[in-house]
Amino acid sequence: MAVETVAPATRSTDFGNAVALSCRECGERVPLGPVFACAVCFGPLEVAYEFPADPEGLRARIEAGPHSIWRYAPLLPVPADVATKPNLDPGFTKLVKADRLARELGVTGGLHIKDDSGNPTHSFKDRVVAIAVEAARNFGLTTLSCSSTGNLAGAVGAAAVRAGFKSCVFIPHDLESGKVVMAAVYGGDLVGIEGTYDDVNRFCSELIGDPIGEGWGFTNVNLRPYYGEGSKTLAYEICEQLGWRLPDNIVIPIASGSQLTKIDKGLQELIKLGLVEEKPYRIYGAQAAGCNPVAAAFKAGHDVVRPVKPDTIAKSLAIGNPADGPYVLDIARRTGGAVEEVDDEQVVDAIKLLARTEGIFAETAGGVTIGVLKKLIETGQLDPAAETVAINTGDGLKTLDAVAPTTGPTAIIRPTLDSFREAGLA
Amino acid sequence: MAVETVAPATRSTDFGNAVALSCRECGERVPLGPVFACAVCFGPLEVAYEFPADPEGLRARIEAGPHSIWRYAPLLPVPADVATKPNLDPGFTKLVKADRLARELGVTGGLHIKDDSGNPTHSFKDRVVAIAVEAARNFGLTTLSCSSTGNLAGAVGAAAVRAGFKSCVFIPHDLESGKVVMAAVYGGDLVGIEGTYDDVNRFCSELIGDPIGEGWGFTNVNLRPYYGEGSKTLAYEICEQLGWRLPDNIVIPIASGSQLTKIDKGLQELIKLGLVEEKPYRIYGAQAAGCNPVAAAFKAGHDVVRPVKPDTIAKSLAIGNPADGPYVLDIARRTGGAVEEVDDEQVVDAIKLLARTEGIFAETAGGVTIGVLKKLIETGQLDPAAETVAINTGDGLKTLDAVAPTTGPTAIIRPTLDSFREAGLA
Repeated sequence: MAVETVAPATRSTDFGNAVALSCRECGERVPLGPVFACAVCFGPLEVAYEFPADPEGLRARIEAGPHSIWRYAPLLPVPADVATKPNLDPGFTKLVKADRLARELGVTGGLHIKDDSGNPTHSFKDRVVAIAVEAARNFGLTTLSCSSTGNLAGAVGAAAVRAGFKSCVFIPHDLESGKVVMAAVYGGDLVGIEGTYDDVNRFCSELIGDPIGEGWGFTNVNLRPYYGEGSKTLAYEICEQLGWRLPDNIVIPIASGSQLTKIDKGLQELIKLGLVEEKPYRIYGAQAAGCNPVAAAFKAGHDVVRPVKPDTIAKSLAIGNPADGPYVLDIARRTGGAVEEVDDEQVVDAIKLLARTEGIFAETAGGVTIGVLKKLIETGQLDPAAETVAINTGDGLKTLDAVAPTTGPTAIIRPTLDSFREAGLA
Repeated sequence: MAVETVAPATRSTDFGNAVALSCRECGERVPLGPVFACAVCFGPLEVAYEFPADPEGLRARIEAGPHSIWRYAPLLPVPADVATKPNLDPGFTKLVKADRLARELGVTGGLHIKDDSGNPTHSFKDRVVAIAVEAARNFGLTTLSCSSTGNLAGAVGAAAVRAGFKSCVFIPHDLESGKVVMAAVYGGDLVGIEGTYDDVNRFCSELIGDPIGEGWGFTNVNLRPYYGEGSKTLAYEICEQLGWRLPDNIVIPIASGSQLTKIDKGLQELIKLGLVEEKPYRIYGAQAAGCNPVAAAFKAGHDVVRPVKPDTIAKSLAIGNPADGPYVLDIARRTGGAVEEVDDEQVVDAIKLLARTEGIFAETAGGVTIGVLKKLIETGQLDPAAETVAINTGDGLKTLDAVAPTTGPTAIIRPTLDSFREAGLA
């Protein structure tokens, strides 16, 4: 990929306070570029910063900023004037005080739902894509791409349009019609691959190494270090919306595990910057039983995550070989949290529980998170007297099929008062 | 309905600056209560206010308020502390500067999309329901209800849950499965009526007059005067987001016509209160050709709206006998606007146009609005050199069927570079 197309001087300015990519495994530092693996040890690269040391000034600047992730521009690999560039302006979604759900679950220490269904394409993917878009702008890339099973495809398609990029998105050819529509409607190229999601991924890696891929930014491959930073904004928003303090527990769904590890990174940054007071917090990971490699490793006490073949209705979490799995295990153990799983029936029950207690209709990933929260409390792994935040990463409209078979009218009647009385609802 | 359950003294406090209901036809005033028709002339009742006369103080208070419709509490029939009560906190959705769409349409004076798909249940209905909920609270009602073909049912179901009401919502029994799920998932009673939407409406009117309906608030019937006020917040937000000034043109979809008339009411209030400078503005109404009673009357120069039998994919606008039709005609003519219509094919094209230019996926009602905007420009009815705002009232995920038949992958390939090259996309 054409790292050389951008002069280093411009580059360091345009990435704000980000100064390098750093290998998570061996610490090797490389210049900011569209690369994702350490040339020394093949470990994952992540963004390193030199932050200003003025917590009061920083906090005031954030609070005066736009109502989107861009209020945290000084903590992200983006230019200071990022909010003036055309993009979807995701983030600063609602942190909902979930008193009714808390009562149902026996939580007495306070429960909040961070509801990311309020993002522009109704999933948390808008956060990560927005950062990848700015990286692509900095690197002079012209086409945005990704492999996806749904949410990411829509987020990339929409973001590309607004930011003025071409897009070419790859999906398994046999996706449900609704997801294909969401991915295709923004008018970029949408390519169905005859194969599984793993085949799509392998093909994308091939494309990056080929001249065809010159000028392409794959949000979740060669732009992954930037993309991942978008998840930190969930941590920032939760703490700011709580009044600049840490919650006791956060329950987070696991697909690749990137969201969970980056939320932990974000919390650590807030502590180091003095934006929140340091105190212990616990990070909990949530998986579906049909795709539980990290939960299984956590329970078995393993450091290594053994890949599985996914079989769950929670398609957006169905990554059988999660790249950040080992880091998730580290964080859950370091903070005194856990990684738990629930089966598909519990996922559906949890979607309905959240809907009927808080009026929030979550996609299956949200059902996994709320289902796991319930199980963690019931099994004594999460203290109900502590303050807990659970993350709903997407919208129920995207996974209607999950609840459709068991969600229907209470009664069908004729349009008469007698018929209504007979139904026994009056 | 039990107006008497609330003492007048409490009532006037709890409704903020609202002081009475006033008949739009004859001006008769009655106390604030769950009534919707004038006892003298059967005209529609609307909320009358005594506003404070301090524009600078009011503007500062609004700007310091929450990022929801509640920042405008002093201009709504709600208590001053409404933001502290549990509800969905809708509103303050994005006003998107639509430069790419403007270029496609030849608009040079500036074009914005007010994107109400960002509301909690992803349609503008959350605004109107939120006001109805506060009225129901004031009147001591315990069950929220409505007749609906989709969006409103979901909005009422979700709002009832959050605000702590029972809900019982009525729909035609043969709605699409997806819409039934959205209406049922929040766990209130959902009753399918064997009949058309008109039958559902008639049944609801019967229910209000029956002892069964005691304590029930029908958002779009006996709470209609309050419910309608929610649409004013679209006018407030548009002007505030433009920097406290009026646009030249606003294009608004027409179902009952209430949204359009209440946006005009909101603009007039802002002018009278001195929050924006007075200047001419034009209000345009948008209908589907398959349900065009107001557009037909406008073109024919009639004052009376002749009912039609709706046949359009824009189901959320399919009201054949729109209650506020005559008022819409008045406003379009008074302001120098127009009422136009587009056919279903143009609706689909407009949904795709908005998606591929701005990354906004609108439901069919949004397609009607954008399609009409395009037609108004092409026919010389709307000045492209003037500043225009068009309203997207709901989310494309709610009406996937409209675009599904014509929205799919650009290509299906094998997972090889050769296969990709053959597809001609590289």
